[in-house]
Amino acid sequence: MEGKDYMNIFVLNCGSSSLKFQLINIENEEVIANGLVEKISESISDFKYYTKNKVELEIKMEIPDHKNAIQLVLERLISSEHGVINDFDDIDIVGHRVVHAGEKFSGSVLITKEVINALKENIKLAPLHNPANIVGIEASKKLMPNTPDVGIFDTAFHQSMPKESYLYALPYQWYQENGVRRYGFHGTSHKYVTERGAELLKKDYDSLKIISCHLGNGASIAAVDQGRVIDTSMGFTPLEGLVMGTRPGDFDPGIISYIMQERNLSIEEIDEILNKESGVLALSGISNDFREISEAAEAGNDRAQLALDIFCRRVKKYIGAYAALLGGVDLLIFTAGIGENAVNIRAKILAELEYFGIIIDPEKNNIQGKEAKISAKTSIVDVYVIPTNEELVIAREAKKVIEQEIETIIKDILK
Amino acid sequence: MEGKDYMNIFVLNCGSSSLKFQLINIENEEVIANGLVEKISESISDFKYYTKNKVELEIKMEIPDHKNAIQLVLERLISSEHGVINDFDDIDIVGHRVVHAGEKFSGSVLITKEVINALKENIKLAPLHNPANIVGIEASKKLMPNTPDVGIFDTAFHQSMPKESYLYALPYQWYQENGVRRYGFHGTSHKYVTERGAELLKKDYDSLKIISCHLGNGASIAAVDQGRVIDTSMGFTPLEGLVMGTRPGDFDPGIISYIMQERNLSIEEIDEILNKESGVLALSGISNDFREISEAAEAGNDRAQLALDIFCRRVKKYIGAYAALLGGVDLLIFTAGIGENAVNIRAKILAELEYFGIIIDPEKNNIQGKEAKISAKTSIVDVYVIPTNEELVIAREAKKVIEQEIETIIKDILK
Repeated sequence: MEGKDYMNIFVLNCGSSSLKFQLINIENEEVIANGLVEKISESISDFKYYTKNKVELEIKMEIPDHKNAIQLVLERLISSEHGVINDFDDIDIVGHRVVHAGEKFSGSVLITKEVINALKENIKLAPLHNPANIVGIEASKKLMPNTPDVGIFDTAFHQSMPKESYLYALPYQWYQENGVRRYGFHGTSHKYVTERGAELLKKDYDSLKIISCHLGNGASIAAVDQGRVIDTSMGFTPLEGLVMGTRPGDFDPGIISYIMQERNLSIEEIDEILNKESGVLALSGISNDFREISEAAEAGNDRAQLALDIFCRRVKKYIGAYAALLGGVDLLIFTAGIGENAVNIRAKILAELEYFGIIIDPEKNNIQGKEAKISAKTSIVDVYVIPTNEELVIAREAKKVIEQEIETIIKDILK
Repeated sequence: MEGKDYMNIFVLNCGSSSLKFQLINIENEEVIANGLVEKISESISDFKYYTKNKVELEIKMEIPDHKNAIQLVLERLISSEHGVINDFDDIDIVGHRVVHAGEKFSGSVLITKEVINALKENIKLAPLHNPANIVGIEASKKLMPNTPDVGIFDTAFHQSMPKESYLYALPYQWYQENGVRRYGFHGTSHKYVTERGAELLKKDYDSLKIISCHLGNGASIAAVDQGRVIDTSMGFTPLEGLVMGTRPGDFDPGIISYIMQERNLSIEEIDEILNKESGVLALSGISNDFREISEAAEAGNDRAQLALDIFCRRVKKYIGAYAALLGGVDLLIFTAGIGENAVNIRAKILAELEYFGIIIDPEKNNIQGKEAKISAKTSIVDVYVIPTNEELVIAREAKKVIEQEIETIIKDILK
């Protein structure tokens, strides 16, 4: 890695049937290439590949599994037609997004065999996400055996939460013996936007009270007090908290035993319904896509309107709750698909919060997908839209981990 | 009932193994006699009977069931030694506390056979509470067949909640076909203290934004906006919301399927644990009694301290959430065992809420079990302790229902 004016980090984010990637030159934080593969293992998969904002490929083809998908991407990166690097040696580090680290890892780590085994143990904590992450890591190790892999965990940023925040009022052995506690997710996103928010305010990150709303198909909110997460809405699983595309967020857990009996459902069927058939999809009866729901609501569909009302109400409740825990708010941030783009939803969430010192400027709020302050001059709380950039956080973390590893090795040699 | 300067209402509150009663002269709202029977159907039951604040009886004896318990109480009321009335005809109405009315009843009702059948249908909605309520009603009907019975529902006050507040983001058929929605409980208590609070403030009830914290072994919080409940923390069951003596309140429902598998528990066992072995009991590992937990915490027990911290933190979050929904707060009320008596817990909940305009006066807060304003002069929000009086609400409601019934009958005759 020496003598080069670049260090390329390949950022890999594997979902259950998708893969997102970016190749980033971490020296200048430029994205050299990026893209995604969707519907992996379905009869026809989608593959999109871009270089520096230029569309290179948007094609449909058969991609049987994640290993094939990664191979396909890597081949494009070095191809004569669309390539951006000479060979795989130009990829210095692979940074992997991993959803759930349990209590094992509070920061990013170099992925060794031991780490992979620990992640496999955590599969039961995140059965929907961790298996895909592991497949990505193993494929990457096979295709680029000499390139170090770094794991960046969605749960890591939230590991600073105090015990009174992460413990549930459930049997203590469930925590001690089974790891039942609040972990929180979207950590890399909350980390990125809150740090970026402090930069935009030109204030010391460690001096601020920040509420960060990551509103996408999955949604969560985090309270950051002087650089430490003090609470977040997703919990042991990504089911808790805000209403989401297909997940309910908070609801009375007493419902589960009742509805199992009433509708003769197994707990596995309940799990499936809670993860895939609830949320605004269930409320609206239309879609989990907020754009479609918003259109339907505007056209007079009552249940679509209800879905939006309930979604916004829940966010508003959390903003209030976190303002109480923080004892005030300096900065309120909206990010992710809905947070960055849904002008009306932001307006609805922020309406009538003058008591909290939050006043939105409707004109400033009328923006999509870019960094902007949307609060009025008279607002005590600064409200910002900040597009998230999880890939950049992953790349930065990956670089940091490898530099620390190298430092440790050098120290060991010099001892 | 004519020609008398009194109307006596016998208020009956049957729990699963207990019975509380009051005989109230509703004309002057004086309690003529009151008491309770505990540990019904255990080998030795406790019976306590008072008349106008005088202890008449505090004895232990065998009381096999609720019917026997009610009979025992009624015999004392007319006895030559401890009696306060001549015979059962001096009881004009029996007012029954009933926990769960479902969506069937939004107000109090004269109890007919049809009503009893409807309540029996609601047993599955409140399996821990409704059966005892029904036993009380049936025993009362048998012992005083000519006296009208009125049912006052714990859920009724919350029936004013808007749909966006009571609907969960769960499959819509669960609501339509199985009644899965937020009902809320402690309605008579929230009604009493919020109405009383408006009286104390000498303000119009329909003009106020009120947050009412009912903190007892069961605990809930309600937001009342201009006379209407707009949200409350207990939901479909009394399991949701605040941390309680043995119930967890909010937690990630995704935990249930995980822990069932991990610890090989059935959903019935989970239900039992969530209702009886969670809450501050589980967190502290000591007791569900807040006095014992507070003592242990003061003596340096970390988990007892943790239990109190988590309890207070949850209340604080709800105060913030409801302040956001209400768009401000005029009046914040504490009631029930802990709310009325636990000086330190109130202080802890209300600490560092200056941002919300809430400033407590430590000296004024140093009171137990009586009506008092505890906020500082500089506090924008008025904070009060108001001892709850569910029995009085039940008696008032019972009178109102019977008067309306009589009016209807007279109208029918005159038609």
